Amino acid sequence: MNFYVMTLFPEMVLQGVNTSITGRGIKAGAISVEAFHIRDYTLDKHGKTEDAPYGGGVGLVMQAQPIWDCYQAVLKRIEENHCASEQTPGDQSDAPEDNDGSSQEQMAVCGRAPGKPRVLYMSPQGRVFDQQFAEELAKEEDLVMLCGHYEGVDERVLELMDAEEVSIGDYVLTGGELPAMVMIDCISRLVPGVLGKIESAEVETFTDHLIEYPQYSRPEVFMDKRVPEVLLSGHHANVDKWRREQSIERTLRKRPDLLETAVLTLSKKELKFLDELKLRVAMEEQEEDADEEEELIPGAPDGI
Amino acid sequence: MNFYVMTLFPEMVLQGVNTSITGRGIKAGAISVEAFHIRDYTLDKHGKTEDAPYGGGVGLVMQAQPIWDCYQAVLKRIEENHCASEQTPGDQSDAPEDNDGSSQEQMAVCGRAPGKPRVLYMSPQGRVFDQQFAEELAKEEDLVMLCGHYEGVDERVLELMDAEEVSIGDYVLTGGELPAMVMIDCISRLVPGVLGKIESAEVETFTDHLIEYPQYSRPEVFMDKRVPEVLLSGHHANVDKWRREQSIERTLRKRPDLLETAVLTLSKKELKFLDELKLRVAMEEQEEDADEEEELIPGAPDGI
Repeated sequence: MNFYVMTLFPEMVLQGVNTSITGRGIKAGAISVEAFHIRDYTLDKHGKTEDAPYGGGVGLVMQAQPIWDCYQAVLKRIEENHCASEQTPGDQSDAPEDNDGSSQEQMAVCGRAPGKPRVLYMSPQGRVFDQQFAEELAKEEDLVMLCGHYEGVDERVLELMDAEEVSIGDYVLTGGELPAMVMIDCISRLVPGVLGKIESAEVETFTDHLIEYPQYSRPEVFMDKRVPEVLLSGHHANVDKWRREQSIERTLRKRPDLLETAVLTLSKKELKFLDELKLRVAMEEQEEDADEEEELIPGAPDGI
Repeated sequence: MNFYVMTLFPEMVLQGVNTSITGRGIKAGAISVEAFHIRDYTLDKHGKTEDAPYGGGVGLVMQAQPIWDCYQAVLKRIEENHCASEQTPGDQSDAPEDNDGSSQEQMAVCGRAPGKPRVLYMSPQGRVFDQQFAEELAKEEDLVMLCGHYEGVDERVLELMDAEEVSIGDYVLTGGELPAMVMIDCISRLVPGVLGKIESAEVETFTDHLIEYPQYSRPEVFMDKRVPEVLLSGHHANVDKWRREQSIERTLRKRPDLLETAVLTLSKKELKFLDELKLRVAMEEQEEDADEEEELIPGAPDGI
């Protein structure tokens, strides 16, 4: 899978994705990340890429021309990459994994205009990025990302590229570079060949919609705090039961909104545990309310 | 405001925050970002910071000891910073802005254990970060951030530091570094002295809960697309009206969930516009449904 990032800070993006698992995925050839410097494509003799907004107002708007020409360079590069991967002889095209028809597809694309890639415009106003959206995007062969800055981007170039606005959360950031790095990290983890077997298993534990159980490692006692006995028992069924119950309890207490989907994955016994737990939590809350009320009535007699 | 980041990838964090507006905020002295390498604090002779989880399972858990000792170093550094900022003579303490009592507060802290700083643990299971949370955190003097990796962090050290789990969104990332960088960027923008006047005004336009209106900059015609006439008219009241209506329409179409809060900021005329718009959108949807139904009945006569 190939990421093409259009940005005013190409070094920031490349440095960020070269660390850790994304960096390993790049070295392994499972993903590629290319950064295109928008400033390289401006026709303005002073290298300007932004100007005042029509209609007035504070700030500067990123102009259409440099982005559009940068996008044309990205499209050209995508076609080159497709043709190169078709023409490369040797290990790749001889490998048995290639018999799934993907190289035929590339052949059909080469020499013609490639199919339009999805273009994502990082914007706090876009569709909110989540794990499901990441899974959808991980199926793409090419993904183009536009990092905005200043007061926004000329609307016409967004329309011309048919850009989808995407937000990583309901907060305002300086530019689209960090959001692009976040999305590349998340999507890459879903591309086959990026994660090892162990890490892939970790991802799976995440998709049951329950919050993770608490983890402990050596030593058994740290600052007078002991590891829960059950984890030292060697009794796998008890460990599993304890962990599942911890996950259910944490989800109920911290993110009850996730439980709606999570209940579908629970066994009958676990559903019974959840019901008892809900009762216990409700009683705790009542007690807390009662305590608060007592505090509000200074003259209340003890025990009432 | 000072950020203290405990991480296994200190260079990644520092490179990321040195760009753009956060980097400028650091140079201006409005914020500081220090990265503490957790590996520097392990007592393991091979420099190990993680080990297998008690109770079995895939992956590795970040151990309590290196993080706890790293945290002690952060606390020491915070006290040093407070004392240094008290003792530094010259420009800062003479500046009239300092008469708000903040240097008195620092004096009281110096030489004693500082008040416990807030510790944020970057975790996909935490409280979801948003602009309101950022505003709350921007009021802190010191913020400690722990970047997790692997299969999680030993629960006991999280309890000992009284760490708050924070998530930047419902997606899985490789580590806590990118989330820490995202939060530092967002929070820094709210710290006085980081943004210039123009940029601060931009932030304000964001907090009315409406999606931004489309922006246009030179040239007037790009790839046969013209800037909307009203923006060239020079008639400020008409421009403002058009922009507000565009914002309202975009919010209704893209993020109707935001409208609940946004309606409180609308004028009577704008509310009337919203009502008409809702009717128009509902009619469009009906038409679309009708078109789809027609397509489903191949033998249906025209016009029905």
